[in-house]
Amino acid sequence: MTPIDLNADLGEGFGRWRLTDDERLLSVVTSANVACGFHAGDAVTMRRVCELAAERGVRIGAQVSYRDLAGFGRRAMDVPSDELTAEVAYQIGALEVFARAAGARVAYVKPHGALYNRIVRDEEQAAAVVDGVLLTGAALPVLGLPSSRFLKLAERAGLPTVTEAFADRAYTAEGTLVPRTRDGAVITDAEEVVERSLGLARSGTVTSDTGERVAVRARSLCLHGDTPGAVELARRVRARLESSGIRVEPFV
Amino acid sequence: MTPIDLNADLGEGFGRWRLTDDERLLSVVTSANVACGFHAGDAVTMRRVCELAAERGVRIGAQVSYRDLAGFGRRAMDVPSDELTAEVAYQIGALEVFARAAGARVAYVKPHGALYNRIVRDEEQAAAVVDGVLLTGAALPVLGLPSSRFLKLAERAGLPTVTEAFADRAYTAEGTLVPRTRDGAVITDAEEVVERSLGLARSGTVTSDTGERVAVRARSLCLHGDTPGAVELARRVRARLESSGIRVEPFV
Amino acid sequence: MTPIDLNADLGEGFGRWRLTDDERLLSVVTSANVACGFHAGDAVTMRRVCELAAERGVRIGAQVSYRDLAGFGRRAMDVPSDELTAEVAYQIGALEVFARAAGARVAYVKPHGALYNRIVRDEEQAAAVVDGVLLTGAALPVLGLPSSRFLKLAERAGLPTVTEAFADRAYTAEGTLVPRTRDGAVITDAEEVVERSLGLARSGTVTSDTGERVAVRARSLCLHGDTPGAVELARRVRARLESSGIRVEPFV
Amino acid sequence: MTPIDLNADLGEGFGRWRLTDDERLLSVVTSANVACGFHAGDAVTMRRVCELAAERGVRIGAQVSYRDLAGFGRRAMDVPSDELTAEVAYQIGALEVFARAAGARVAYVKPHGALYNRIVRDEEQAAAVVDGVLLTGAALPVLGLPSSRFLKLAERAGLPTVTEAFADRAYTAEGTLVPRTRDGAVITDAEEVVERSLGLARSGTVTSDTGERVAVRARSLCLHGDTPGAVELARRVRARLESSGIRVEPFV
Repeated sequence: MTPIDLNADLGEGFGRWRLTDDERLLSVVTSANVACGFHAGDAVTMRRVCELAAERGVRIGAQVSYRDLAGFGRRAMDVPSDELTAEVAYQIGALEVFARAAGARVAYVKPHGALYNRIVRDEEQAAAVVDGVLLTGAALPVLGLPSSRFLKLAERAGLPTVTEAFADRAYTAEGTLVPRTRDGAVITDAEEVVERSLGLARSGTVTSDTGERVAVRARSLCLHGDTPGAVELARRVRARLESSGIRVEPFV
Repeated sequence: MTPIDLNADLGEGFGRWRLTDDERLLSVVTSANVACGFHAGDAVTMRRVCELAAERGVRIGAQVSYRDLAGFGRRAMDVPSDELTAEVAYQIGALEVFARAAGARVAYVKPHGALYNRIVRDEEQAAAVVDGVLLTGAALPVLGLPSSRFLKLAERAGLPTVTEAFADRAYTAEGTLVPRTRDGAVITDAEEVVERSLGLARSGTVTSDTGERVAVRARSLCLHGDTPGAVELARRVRARLESSGIRVEPFV
Repeated sequence: MTPIDLNADLGEGFGRWRLTDDERLLSVVTSANVACGFHAGDAVTMRRVCELAAERGVRIGAQVSYRDLAGFGRRAMDVPSDELTAEVAYQIGALEVFARAAGARVAYVKPHGALYNRIVRDEEQAAAVVDGVLLTGAALPVLGLPSSRFLKLAERAGLPTVTEAFADRAYTAEGTLVPRTRDGAVITDAEEVVERSLGLARSGTVTSDTGERVAVRARSLCLHGDTPGAVELARRVRARLESSGIRVEPFV
Repeated sequence: MTPIDLNADLGEGFGRWRLTDDERLLSVVTSANVACGFHAGDAVTMRRVCELAAERGVRIGAQVSYRDLAGFGRRAMDVPSDELTAEVAYQIGALEVFARAAGARVAYVKPHGALYNRIVRDEEQAAAVVDGVLLTGAALPVLGLPSSRFLKLAERAGLPTVTEAFADRAYTAEGTLVPRTRDGAVITDAEEVVERSLGLARSGTVTSDTGERVAVRARSLCLHGDTPGAVELARRVRARLESSGIRVEPFV
């Protein structure tokens, strides 16, 4: 059976402010999406998360974002392609220095928030992000939604692509995410989240909002780290996966 | 005779704003101190300056600064050591990606503005900047004033150090810069600047504000790029040096 | 004959960077759209522009923008309504203090850049900006395009509305602006700009890109201040209007 | 007996990040020092805190700071006087709009963090802050340490001054605060904090770190809102004061 990766957003504080329980989450996940300073993530936090991740063998990913501290990267922006490309590369470069100093490296790239959602369909911005990754010269794997333009263009450009699924999000019968604006889009029952994680990891399927079993191809599960009880839930997911004989391993 | 390097601050625009005539200055200097986004320097500009510099064989340096766009890095700040160290490393890392993409590399580090002045004497911040450079793992040369704490600590830490002088600044009989607050601190007569450049490069001496000939050890001359006539003056300095048989070459 | 107002964007520097020739433009225009710190405009500049405007009897307007220094407010953003409303009010409040200190007041509001363009059609954001203006409690006039949603909603909310036209932009036969992406969208010939200004002020008409004479209702003409020759062109426009017997007067 | 005011820093989140429990603190304090966007405090939060404060009759103060989100205003900065003056006025103006919209007004000014500490002794910056307050034209009371340069200069400029004390900080025999770098500078025992509050409010005295009873003149007590248990402690302080017959009332 294919192993499954567990990824979470980490280092999402800024200066005085903390958001994610980085230390405890790093004992659960196998891949850390580290904020790079554009939506969150000051330099001290980036350094510390990289050190902790390296100690635990957790892979370090660059969680690149629109430049938007005030909006936490959740406001879609019409950024010209050349600016978006350069800003993505800038963030990856900044993280590289801390990953390297910790004896590790930036192992993949995952766009954040509004950028993540935008490049599911926006061809131009998806291409700009791919160009930003290419600019680093490292052929870094990118993490995203199975059917996104982003992953398509990344693949075409020769970058390894990794698909992810969300155990706490409802899916349509077509295998796409139910928009957050719809009721029931987010699954809050912990046991249900654990069960869905297992289904996604074991059979690559999930029950849709209309009751069908649909295929959702995912090499990685995204766990949320910024809600109360997040760490505890993440631990339960990992424990269930492992006790069911599924190997929890990074994808790279 | 030792060759002399000519360095200038470049890429000091931000978004819509331009300050330095990057393209023309890059045809004169041998080392480009590229702004890394903290006092100036957006990602698009950083990328473009790195490309132009690499094309012309100009060395790329990281011009690291306090985080202070509103004050252009000219406001001294009491930044805790761990923050300053991480912020310096962050900026170098961000620039590395563009230098590398241009087929070059970050070849040295030069602090900017208030940080540059502060670490002439401030032991703690000087050490923090050195630690930031060390964090990159690249043993990058650092550029600074001959007698600064910064260069002393960098040397002790095993980093190559490069001294610089200013042809358009008055010097005291002790060989230190006359503070900007004093009359005559800045030399505005172009021919005088050219002559002083020649003296500094040829004999490592300059006439002090009290008329003595003083030794100012410098492997690099800093040219200013943000004043009207800056490019023309830089060209005259370079032409005079070369016509006097002095080799104009980067220090690394 | 109705008098015409001349407005221009002013104070669009930030810290070390300058963009607009504020002092000279203030001797030409009757209304100054002062940048409030979100796309440009530091506090010192805001204060100085308000002082100069008040001395010359030029009206002070709040040029409110998305929070986007790096993109100069030219990147459209999906800002939630409550945030946009509060951010608009914040900017107006900040400007008020400088207008008041100069013995004047904020006399109107004009959105900037991408926000200006977005609320021509975006109902939700247009309403949010109107709410931001209402929050100040001052029933400030708003400046915008004749057929924009923004002006419609402002009017409905009881705010005075002022229409503006652009002498250096091509118009369609329907009286709307030719998009900047099309050839000929911007008119660069100075004499043509002067002539069109006269037509707009005298008869409220302009020749469209297809040659028809179309009505463009405008109480104010927007002059651009950030291009070479901008001040000179503004002076010629004003001189031609006045020599043709048109009164150049603020709208408030 | 003179009544005592209780003030606390509020609205110190930014965008996605929260720090202070604004709602609950507003049911305890009589004066709210509202962050104005330079060290913390986005526009939505400023608006909400003003609304809640106005509902409860809590006075609204402008908590002005250096421009330093990354450092939470805790990094002392050498800001030129004209910039500091304009930045202080900018922040007060921005807050005014929300106070007014809530049916209240900005009733006082309290500098934050490193700025607060700097102007205890720094004559130039103290004068610059006073000028910033004066610029608003409102003769706003300022809150600070009894013997600070800031209060001296404010008084000389005709501004009402209000002294404050800290129940959770140790005092020297001279009545000044024990520096945070010294052991025992911060008092963590809740009952001791409550007792000291009572002493300060009732007799204007406190026991120094060397055991003497010293006079500390204070019309207001500053309560901290960003620590665990802060709200509970604030409630105990207020309850003890009131049960001891001391009136808890704003100073303005």
